[in-house]
Amino acid sequence: MLELIDWNQRISRKDYDLWYPQLEIELGNCQRAARKAGLPMIWVFEGWHAAGKGLLINRLTQALDPRGFRVHLMTVPTAEEARRPWLWRYWMNLPSAGEIAIFDHSWYYRVLEERLRGDISDEEAARAYGDILEFERQLTAGGVLIHKFWLHVDAKEQRKRFRALQKDPATAWKVTKGYWRQNRDYDRWVQAVEETLARTNTADAPWTIVEAAQGKFTRVKVIRTLTQRVRDALAARDDARPMTAAPMPVPDANTLVHPTVLDRVDLTLSLTRDAYEKKLKRLRSRLYDLEHLAYLAKIPIVIAYEGWDAAGKGGNIKRLTRGLDPRGYQVVPIGPPTDEERRHHYLWRFWRHIPKTGHITIFDRSWYGRVLVERVEGFCTEREWKRAFSEINEFEHQLVDFGTVIVKFWLHIDQDEQLRRFQDRANTPSKQWKITDEDWRNREKWAQYELAVVDMLERTSTIYAPWTILEANCKLYARIKSLQTVADAMQAAINQR
Amino acid sequence: MLELIDWNQRISRKDYDLWYPQLEIELGNCQRAARKAGLPMIWVFEGWHAAGKGLLINRLTQALDPRGFRVHLMTVPTAEEARRPWLWRYWMNLPSAGEIAIFDHSWYYRVLEERLRGDISDEEAARAYGDILEFERQLTAGGVLIHKFWLHVDAKEQRKRFRALQKDPATAWKVTKGYWRQNRDYDRWVQAVEETLARTNTADAPWTIVEAAQGKFTRVKVIRTLTQRVRDALAARDDARPMTAAPMPVPDANTLVHPTVLDRVDLTLSLTRDAYEKKLKRLRSRLYDLEHLAYLAKIPIVIAYEGWDAAGKGGNIKRLTRGLDPRGYQVVPIGPPTDEERRHHYLWRFWRHIPKTGHITIFDRSWYGRVLVERVEGFCTEREWKRAFSEINEFEHQLVDFGTVIVKFWLHIDQDEQLRRFQDRANTPSKQWKITDEDWRNREKWAQYELAVVDMLERTSTIYAPWTILEANCKLYARIKSLQTVADAMQAAINQR
Repeated sequence: MLELIDWNQRISRKDYDLWYPQLEIELGNCQRAARKAGLPMIWVFEGWHAAGKGLLINRLTQALDPRGFRVHLMTVPTAEEARRPWLWRYWMNLPSAGEIAIFDHSWYYRVLEERLRGDISDEEAARAYGDILEFERQLTAGGVLIHKFWLHVDAKEQRKRFRALQKDPATAWKVTKGYWRQNRDYDRWVQAVEETLARTNTADAPWTIVEAAQGKFTRVKVIRTLTQRVRDALAARDDARPMTAAPMPVPDANTLVHPTVLDRVDLTLSLTRDAYEKKLKRLRSRLYDLEHLAYLAKIPIVIAYEGWDAAGKGGNIKRLTRGLDPRGYQVVPIGPPTDEERRHHYLWRFWRHIPKTGHITIFDRSWYGRVLVERVEGFCTEREWKRAFSEINEFEHQLVDFGTVIVKFWLHIDQDEQLRRFQDRANTPSKQWKITDEDWRNREKWAQYELAVVDMLERTSTIYAPWTILEANCKLYARIKSLQTVADAMQAAINQR
Repeated sequence: MLELIDWNQRISRKDYDLWYPQLEIELGNCQRAARKAGLPMIWVFEGWHAAGKGLLINRLTQALDPRGFRVHLMTVPTAEEARRPWLWRYWMNLPSAGEIAIFDHSWYYRVLEERLRGDISDEEAARAYGDILEFERQLTAGGVLIHKFWLHVDAKEQRKRFRALQKDPATAWKVTKGYWRQNRDYDRWVQAVEETLARTNTADAPWTIVEAAQGKFTRVKVIRTLTQRVRDALAARDDARPMTAAPMPVPDANTLVHPTVLDRVDLTLSLTRDAYEKKLKRLRSRLYDLEHLAYLAKIPIVIAYEGWDAAGKGGNIKRLTRGLDPRGYQVVPIGPPTDEERRHHYLWRFWRHIPKTGHITIFDRSWYGRVLVERVEGFCTEREWKRAFSEINEFEHQLVDFGTVIVKFWLHIDQDEQLRRFQDRANTPSKQWKITDEDWRNREKWAQYELAVVDMLERTSTIYAPWTILEANCKLYARIKSLQTVADAMQAAINQR
């Protein structure tokens, strides 16, 4: 692939002076239009050492309103970053609506530098390609414009540039051992680069190879490519039929094939108070020990609670955390998104809170809101929630791949039990704060939620992150089962180390 | 002080069983009431090693709704944290409205552990006390409830506990060399602890010394203290006359003593296009070099732009950044706060963006909004903006203390010039997006803003962070002067290293 590129492209000073000022204005206009449209953009710059990446980014940004972009130089992960799945640091630096994130090195650092340096195994590199494809697809599906550039020169030219840099005391420090290593290993690098370009050159996140013999040519080509891309994206938005989102209608009686997974739940399961107290005590001390062992084994743990209103999520979480050292866990309640969260991909707010190694995050409601409340209430479009099933599976897979233990609970009660609990709350002064009009409104949509829950359980119960249904008509039974499930999952992960 | 404490306090099992369940319920009620009232709380736990801090926090949190608190274990700063002023990591972990942040070790780690270990000099410790007092005062003035606990046992008891821990293989790892060092140096530690308690025991952020012989007694005392504190705080809120905020009226003609600092600005200063181009070119290459040198010298740089609408802030920032490597700076535009920002202290959103060592942050509008737009429009109360002058001086002092260079610009134009620019914008299609109804509304409040600006300049131009007024009727002149000012400030800081 690369050998077919004539990297030695140039344009004349005269043409450049004629075109470039106009191109800069166009790029500025594109930025403004994208900001107005709320379009987030990611521009990735990769290339050979000394191909002129730094200078290019420098000049490019001069055409931009500095209030609307951010340049991220990504190389070796910091200690904090290394304690999370490898894509975490990119999630944390995503552009919000209308902003531009410029990556000087990017997630491709992993499949190029880290791989060729031998920092990661071949198997890890193979998985990284999968992660990258998922990552970029999730973002572009979520409306982010991604464009990637590879700055290309040949090995001889690279050597020439290194020597020129070394001659000047002001730039000699730039030419590190890593630079020369790349030049010596140029052929091995070419293979890795070609594999990378071939595997990750998708329609929505394409690569442009830039012949980087001359700064002027490079800049002109990059700006032309970007402005065209932005214009196309904005035009496509204007053309697109506006996506409408509507609340789910009451499902047809035949939509669900009974008995569903929920119908089969045995809600008569129960525990006596005595048996409960005894088991609880034992489980608590077991969990306390396991938390410490998981900390030593550097295992991150994610626990997500979903369930019907009044099914007992809060009480369940309270019993679980009572057994834990509060320095090692965090409970994250998920309500309506804040406005910063709204300006990002919907998974961003969960990436923000994933635990680092040795820590536990408990989500009180979770990313499954996308396929539950957002689907039922019409807070997102049909395409969005349909896409979410695989996006969620990918998200969880990336966590598990890093060694994270995931436990997901659906707290199940039946309609009669819910009514009893609502009435009890309404009639008990000390519990009235627990019940709201929204609870009653949600209850009227039981059939819609039932359909959404069954879909969710069927589509997102994976081998690596299975759902556990808690039979919660008896609160005591549900609590013991959840603590037991968490303890067993932690134990299994610890044994595997 | 500490020698007068009879640390060996106990309560009987019977009394404990009688009181404790009720105390737990009360603490839970307090948490709920505080959440409803939007009261943020910070509970600090410090004490001797093995005094029972971990267990206390563990038991305390069992009485709380786990969705409303977060425990922060703060010890040695991470590499990222060490690249910012030392209080930064505490700012980043502040509770938002209605939440509880529990600190297991806190900012007192610096004046105890770090000081006694010799990690920081006596002078740094002395300054740290000042920083702590400012920090706590800023937070409590902003409505945060702070309570601090010191868990006390004597040296003999501590030794006994260490030995007991060491005997049990499950806990032996806890007793580190640092533990024994504290015991050996107990007397030196007592001095430091007493100094700390004495200097930082303020009315709004008090210390409670807890006799920690027995876990039961400790818990009862801590919960009683906290519930009383929360109840008092909520009652005081109810009693307080609601603070009203109102737009500033047109000031009386005699309010400002003319000539003010603004009257004395020579707005006839100007530059020809030729002279401008020549100077600009020289300054740019100088700034590019300085940025690199400042990076090597690990100097963080903060540049804040304030000024009249249409005074040319945007164009000025653009010329400044054009000379810089975009990997080393970030421009942060300050608009209305997001809802996450609204739930925190008003300085929090600026702490979020302060540069780490070797980096530059340019604020397009800044924390001075508090004493400008918020004062004029009545977005905050009179007490709040009056307090802000010293809070801002303290904030900037803490940055400078860390080695940060601060450059602050006021872009000054006169009313006629502003009108000309507004009309030009309104009449030029390509510039119309730049002018809004709000600009015209602000213009009507020129007299109010003038008063606010003069106050601001007079009260916050400090030796360590002086204001530079840019004579901006001639845009070219203002640009050159700002670049020159930044370059000189960077140069001076580099020379000092």
